[in-house]
Amino acid sequence: MGKVLVFGHKSPDTDAICSAIAFAELKNKLGEEVEPVRLGEIGGETEYVLNYFHVDAPRLVKSVADEVPAVYLVDHNERGQSVDDIEKVEIRSVVDHHRIANFETKSPLYYRAEPVGCTCTIVNKLFKENGVALSKTTAGLMLSAIISDTLLFKSPTCTQEDVAAAKELEAIAGVDAATYGLDMLKAGTNIADKAAEELIQLDMKPFTMGSHAVEIAQVNVVDVQDALSRQDELEAAISKEIEAKHLDVFLLAVTNILTSDSEALILGKASEKTAEAFGVKLINHTATLKGVVSRKKQIVPVLNEKLAD
Amino acid sequence: MGKVLVFGHKSPDTDAICSAIAFAELKNKLGEEVEPVRLGEIGGETEYVLNYFHVDAPRLVKSVADEVPAVYLVDHNERGQSVDDIEKVEIRSVVDHHRIANFETKSPLYYRAEPVGCTCTIVNKLFKENGVALSKTTAGLMLSAIISDTLLFKSPTCTQEDVAAAKELEAIAGVDAATYGLDMLKAGTNIADKAAEELIQLDMKPFTMGSHAVEIAQVNVVDVQDALSRQDELEAAISKEIEAKHLDVFLLAVTNILTSDSEALILGKASEKTAEAFGVKLINHTATLKGVVSRKKQIVPVLNEKLAD
Repeated sequence: MGKVLVFGHKSPDTDAICSAIAFAELKNKLGEEVEPVRLGEIGGETEYVLNYFHVDAPRLVKSVADEVPAVYLVDHNERGQSVDDIEKVEIRSVVDHHRIANFETKSPLYYRAEPVGCTCTIVNKLFKENGVALSKTTAGLMLSAIISDTLLFKSPTCTQEDVAAAKELEAIAGVDAATYGLDMLKAGTNIADKAAEELIQLDMKPFTMGSHAVEIAQVNVVDVQDALSRQDELEAAISKEIEAKHLDVFLLAVTNILTSDSEALILGKASEKTAEAFGVKLINHTATLKGVVSRKKQIVPVLNEKLAD
Repeated sequence: MGKVLVFGHKSPDTDAICSAIAFAELKNKLGEEVEPVRLGEIGGETEYVLNYFHVDAPRLVKSVADEVPAVYLVDHNERGQSVDDIEKVEIRSVVDHHRIANFETKSPLYYRAEPVGCTCTIVNKLFKENGVALSKTTAGLMLSAIISDTLLFKSPTCTQEDVAAAKELEAIAGVDAATYGLDMLKAGTNIADKAAEELIQLDMKPFTMGSHAVEIAQVNVVDVQDALSRQDELEAAISKEIEAKHLDVFLLAVTNILTSDSEALILGKASEKTAEAFGVKLINHTATLKGVVSRKKQIVPVLNEKLAD
């Protein structure tokens, strides 16, 4: 078997990057030649993580079929979130914790999904099931991914399995999750030096919901008003994105990691319908989503229910 | 949590029935209330298995949403192969060994697929991973499913993991796989007492391949000529099915379990294209597919490649 590439979704977050690195380490230790790659620029939080553990960012790729006949996917399955030429390669396995949609294979494959908070929680199981020991560095990356995806165990996506995995990884990595975790999350909230165009792409995922083309982006902050002081600039960037991609709606969730609420900025012709899904009214294109911190658990299913008809 | 139903695909084969019974036993032993059910009539082979191990056939259901809010799927995922009202319930988990297609969920779920020969090989792992002991009877059912899906380990779908699982199950069940297995397979080849309409439905699966509606049925025999002596009657039944379901093609594979070849009877407006996919010419609507015994590995991907465009 030749080399296989493994990667997480476009607009990679910490889990997309770290689960790819960890999965590659597992496969390499099992004797396969696997390289982790990434499909986009990394954000401030992930940069903090990689610097902290002295790990290089995976190589950036725009296509894969010119390099390899087969790939492993982590932290995603939907076609629109994957590499542009995904249709041209064999998907040999998927390890993920999202809904399954817009995904199809010609042949049977290895697919491991569990409704847990973080892909790395599942990858941790795979290491144990295969009897492979984790390196200290990779344990640190995996712990970071769990902290990131669960907002330090406060997100409703966080399960007991995530907490248990984080405890194991904390011990191997030799860091204090609470202290390290808050520093890491705060590193992802520094948005002052980012252009609006960049901000809305940092952690953005496209979805097809019924006949609607939807994009949902999320930015973590410690001061929502500070972020919304740039609303005009953000709206201009979002409107350009809507026009370019013929979107029906774009939702930007500005999530306060300290209070666990989100302010949603919603544009596009389905924006009213989107607000209705959450039982709120838009004022100046925005609405507060109380207690909403999880795109996967609190935004996607709610919106899909409304738009999928 | 209330009761959950678990079931395999329509036109259930031995794996669809036995993996549902085994998965229900696992979940029941883990404290959940789970009932195995079936979506269609069982064939002669499965009847032999259930009689041999003194197990009642699961209850037949035509719908599930009127009974339960959530289900577990085994041995299938494609919507068209599942219960008619599958869209109305939550799919809480899937254990399967087929390609993934025409499958979509609103929320994350537990999905366990591996490219092995039989769902029961995966269910056997789940028993071990959860530290749950298998009953002698259920081990016998699971062994039967592996023998059925791998044609006594001779199908190209059979992996080392299936062979290893069968060995473990053989010991627990206390039967000789070779002797018992051949008797069991032969019990499934008695087609003399079946009407043509019934024969083509016994182990039939519908597929959507590109814009084509396809149905592929398989019948195991020990004498192909004997089966084809009823070609006129079979063609009439298939033509009726094509008309009723607006199919583009219907392929009936008559598989000789002793020689491991299949005779294909192919009707419908895409029949020539289907034959081309296998590099054969139809003579009187039939063609020999040398060495072809596996729908999943040797028929579906080949046909999908041709028709999916």
